[in-house]
Amino acid sequence: MNNPILPRIRTPQDVKALNEDELQTLCGEVRQTLIAVTAKNGGHLASNLGAVELTVALHYVFQSPDDQIVFDVGHQCYTHKLLTGRYDRFGSLRTEGGLSGFCRPSESEHDIFYSGHSGTSVSAGLGLATAKKLQNDPHFVVSVIGDGSFTGGLVYEALNNGGRSGTRHILVLNDNNMSISENVGSLAKYLAVIRSTPQYYTFKASTERTLSKIPSIGKPLVQKLYDLKTAVKNRLYAESTFFEDLGYRYMGPVDGHNISVLIDALEAAKRVNGPVLLHVNTQKGKGYRFAEENPRAFHGVAGFDPLTGEQPKAGESFSSRFGSLLKAQAEKQPEICAITAAMGFSTGLEPFKDAFPDRFFDVGIAEEHAVTFAAGLAKDGMLPVFAVYSTFLQRCYDELVHDVALQNVKVIFAIDRAGFVGEDGETHQGLMDVAFLSSIPNFKIYAPCSFRTLQADLNQAIHADHGPVAVRYPRGGEPQESEKLRFDCVEYATYGDESADTAICTYGRLSAEAVKACDALEKKGVPAHVVALNQIHPLPGGALEILKQKRNICFFEEGLQTGGAGEQTALRLLESGYGGTFRLTAVPDCFVAQASVKEQLRKYGLDSDSMIKTMTDITETQA
Amino acid sequence: MNNPILPRIRTPQDVKALNEDELQTLCGEVRQTLIAVTAKNGGHLASNLGAVELTVALHYVFQSPDDQIVFDVGHQCYTHKLLTGRYDRFGSLRTEGGLSGFCRPSESEHDIFYSGHSGTSVSAGLGLATAKKLQNDPHFVVSVIGDGSFTGGLVYEALNNGGRSGTRHILVLNDNNMSISENVGSLAKYLAVIRSTPQYYTFKASTERTLSKIPSIGKPLVQKLYDLKTAVKNRLYAESTFFEDLGYRYMGPVDGHNISVLIDALEAAKRVNGPVLLHVNTQKGKGYRFAEENPRAFHGVAGFDPLTGEQPKAGESFSSRFGSLLKAQAEKQPEICAITAAMGFSTGLEPFKDAFPDRFFDVGIAEEHAVTFAAGLAKDGMLPVFAVYSTFLQRCYDELVHDVALQNVKVIFAIDRAGFVGEDGETHQGLMDVAFLSSIPNFKIYAPCSFRTLQADLNQAIHADHGPVAVRYPRGGEPQESEKLRFDCVEYATYGDESADTAICTYGRLSAEAVKACDALEKKGVPAHVVALNQIHPLPGGALEILKQKRNICFFEEGLQTGGAGEQTALRLLESGYGGTFRLTAVPDCFVAQASVKEQLRKYGLDSDSMIKTMTDITETQA
Repeated sequence: MNNPILPRIRTPQDVKALNEDELQTLCGEVRQTLIAVTAKNGGHLASNLGAVELTVALHYVFQSPDDQIVFDVGHQCYTHKLLTGRYDRFGSLRTEGGLSGFCRPSESEHDIFYSGHSGTSVSAGLGLATAKKLQNDPHFVVSVIGDGSFTGGLVYEALNNGGRSGTRHILVLNDNNMSISENVGSLAKYLAVIRSTPQYYTFKASTERTLSKIPSIGKPLVQKLYDLKTAVKNRLYAESTFFEDLGYRYMGPVDGHNISVLIDALEAAKRVNGPVLLHVNTQKGKGYRFAEENPRAFHGVAGFDPLTGEQPKAGESFSSRFGSLLKAQAEKQPEICAITAAMGFSTGLEPFKDAFPDRFFDVGIAEEHAVTFAAGLAKDGMLPVFAVYSTFLQRCYDELVHDVALQNVKVIFAIDRAGFVGEDGETHQGLMDVAFLSSIPNFKIYAPCSFRTLQADLNQAIHADHGPVAVRYPRGGEPQESEKLRFDCVEYATYGDESADTAICTYGRLSAEAVKACDALEKKGVPAHVVALNQIHPLPGGALEILKQKRNICFFEEGLQTGGAGEQTALRLLESGYGGTFRLTAVPDCFVAQASVKEQLRKYGLDSDSMIKTMTDITETQA
Repeated sequence: MNNPILPRIRTPQDVKALNEDELQTLCGEVRQTLIAVTAKNGGHLASNLGAVELTVALHYVFQSPDDQIVFDVGHQCYTHKLLTGRYDRFGSLRTEGGLSGFCRPSESEHDIFYSGHSGTSVSAGLGLATAKKLQNDPHFVVSVIGDGSFTGGLVYEALNNGGRSGTRHILVLNDNNMSISENVGSLAKYLAVIRSTPQYYTFKASTERTLSKIPSIGKPLVQKLYDLKTAVKNRLYAESTFFEDLGYRYMGPVDGHNISVLIDALEAAKRVNGPVLLHVNTQKGKGYRFAEENPRAFHGVAGFDPLTGEQPKAGESFSSRFGSLLKAQAEKQPEICAITAAMGFSTGLEPFKDAFPDRFFDVGIAEEHAVTFAAGLAKDGMLPVFAVYSTFLQRCYDELVHDVALQNVKVIFAIDRAGFVGEDGETHQGLMDVAFLSSIPNFKIYAPCSFRTLQADLNQAIHADHGPVAVRYPRGGEPQESEKLRFDCVEYATYGDESADTAICTYGRLSAEAVKACDALEKKGVPAHVVALNQIHPLPGGALEILKQKRNICFFEEGLQTGGAGEQTALRLLESGYGGTFRLTAVPDCFVAQASVKEQLRKYGLDSDSMIKTMTDITETQA
């Protein structure tokens, strides 16, 4: 690579100065950078590789940030970051204090909207485009969205409004024929059909561009081609009515790895006087053999060997353990069904899927449907288990209330990535589920601290409990020290000196930190008693009885403070006339940026060292 | 009405015994009952009138409850109640202890699913149908859904899954060309087109029924007609691909007020071996002139004169006051936009709509899109105000988190029907918003106790605050006694004896109850000090300082206990070392059935009489 181009791209303006060959070269350099950095830092590789030419073309055609490019989910925004002045810092991707793996407005004026949850870009883009229309601002708003996001209802709500908005909203459908996993549903099938239809629009646009430069002969010829286009369009129309029915002018499909074609198509989209959808065919993982061959494995990676594509073997995690436990149960109980919203792989459900394909449901990125569908299954005698990341469960709060809790049907929620999630940052933290689930009547919530407790909680949920049950567990493996905890009942465990007048109360992953803190404090001659909640809502009466006897209670919570278990405990203690010291250390009500989980625990005072400090402060004040 | 039929319908089985004339007569009797009872008790009239023949036909064709009929929203379930053994009790509709105005499984085995929020019937029905498929149960599942619900994304998510489910899910689209208000969006326009297409399927079905009874000539003729049908179908197909694209076989449209046609069409739908959508055209308000002429006014009524259609004049409400205040502000500030999710009328936005049609957005029943769209508007310099019922705001929790709070954009939420809603019951209570909004970082929440405070809070939100702000207010008019409250700051007001060692702390509508209780207690010689929070999150420090000085604090909250303002107050008090008595009276974590608001306040210990009793208990215990 002599005199590479990418390091010289300081703003999108620099992209516009390149000729076609240079644009091609740039794409190659971008791909090398994407592979090198994600190999080291982890991240979303395959989807980003597929959107390189598209992103270069977007910045060639549009004037960011006056024209606004809104990326859906952000699984395809790395190239955008490289072209908008962040090449120098790209090595800090997904690290503490570094670049976010998603769009983040505080990072750059070119990042229009935070993204991380899928399907928001159409509504957001429509809001921006409407504001521009009201303000007579002629700039463009472009939403770039993958076909996977089209399985979610929010996109449809937005299209239904956008189609009659009269704005010049441009929607680029980046169709790689994949969701995070294989894409599902009727629309996916539909898109597969139109992926392979003749690329009439491109033909028209590029021919027009060439021909209209020839004076006198050019114009009439262009008119002829317009007529031809209309004929072709009518043929295509039968296949493209879905979007046209919703009021978006349909253009495409075009080859998403041909820069020149993309530039033509985007220029053509700019000329449409109304909402328009440009359908772009791309290949997930494009340009990196291992990702092309196995796009799902390279969707999100923790790091890999760039030469061999080899990824580090993941140890057993709560996700994988959950998956094997559920499969084992399902062998005995034919009523058990598993549901995922496009996360079958990462929630550990693959073995279940292979063993019981009829009882496995991947609904697409459609968490709301997942929950109401589960309620229907449960109502007629099945036992559905919805495995979902904590952050995505936020998307179906009303369905949890209206369709599950109000019916009081038995649906089990296996909530993965509860608590800090590390490198994915703000949009993906699992810090709210305890608060929002606790507020829903009839819900029971477990927070296992170990694989053994995970098994016990699932057993309890499947065999003993009635109504909705949530079992929430963190990303990653079993925390050390958790096996020391003493369970006398299913609701909570204890550890340490039960005669100590200071209690450490916590739950989930932090239970192991509490054990460590307790051991260290004992060595310092400060006795402590750990109360590790396994059932965190409703609060177990036995645990409260222990706490009431203590002079000092330090509650540690890996979740937001307001509405959490600590606050619920405080109310119960206060109402019972508790007169001791209560100190709650939880995540203050804020959004938590990326870092390693370890760093996040330390930052918010939730690792064992911080616990020791908090406890020491209290006891020293009292001494 | 000699020897009327309706009183003799004890089960749906009785419907099947009727001939066509009797079915017609039955429909007439049902309509008279609907009009008589809603004139007295209030309820959803126009939509129910439109679905009379459809419901009679459904019970004629299907075997409820073995076949399961799932009604969407429940705005069309009254006839169903009358035909399933509840005629005798129908006079108790929407009253305490009486029949619910929505489907309620605890009321009848024929009510399959609670309903109240729109768009859930397809997902729920698909879950039921899938359970049947897994269990080899040949019975049918029918979801009955209005066209208004099709503006919501959940329906689309369900269709996308249902279309490839291989279940025999039957979807009846009750198309009355209306949402709660006029229907909106591209799909509405699309449906309007196909409403008027030739009714090919009906023709086919009824002809087939008649002809195939003629032996030897019949069968071949039917085959000919099948071929003809295919030709017609191909013509119709171009207009019906939206549903076919999603994998549902499309049938229709058929006349929804012709029982015989409906029976034929439903029988035909039963014969389809896969998911099918039957499109039924109905007229909202059918059979009652005043409702036909003004379906919107008769969508939900509080009661009316059946002879004249005259409805009682509504006094000024928080909704109407909000509407006029916002309009007045918008005259001065061109950046103010108003957004509603099909509730422009009932949230008081009509005057705004008339004055500023370009800045008024009815997005359909699409709360999620409303919020993300608002975030987009705000990002580009507009000031969007989303007026929404508390219960429906539950539907966009993640959009509040991910698109509003995380971007920290200034969007104002005018939350109507906060607290008890009275006669609509379980599905519509506004008892959760304080909990779920408090859990979201960056949100500020106001709970005005009077029209004057509503104005002050809106002013504060528009002119002073940054980031997302919620202003939540109850259904109905201004509570008496609230004008006595003394505001020294915007965050909270006080009343009564500030040297009293007992405090009543509350917010919103209950503030007036607290004033009444305080006055009554004073007469009994029990001094009390009222602290009425106007800003309920974050908790105002000044109010907490007052509370800390008190020996007794009684907190009253018209909302669920867990995660509410009372619990948040408890944490702050406990952490500050408060050693007095704290008693929280909130709605225990449960779903609250219908009754008048007054009855609901009394039942949960939140009216002034209950407050007096709680206070007296405490002070007497201490005396």
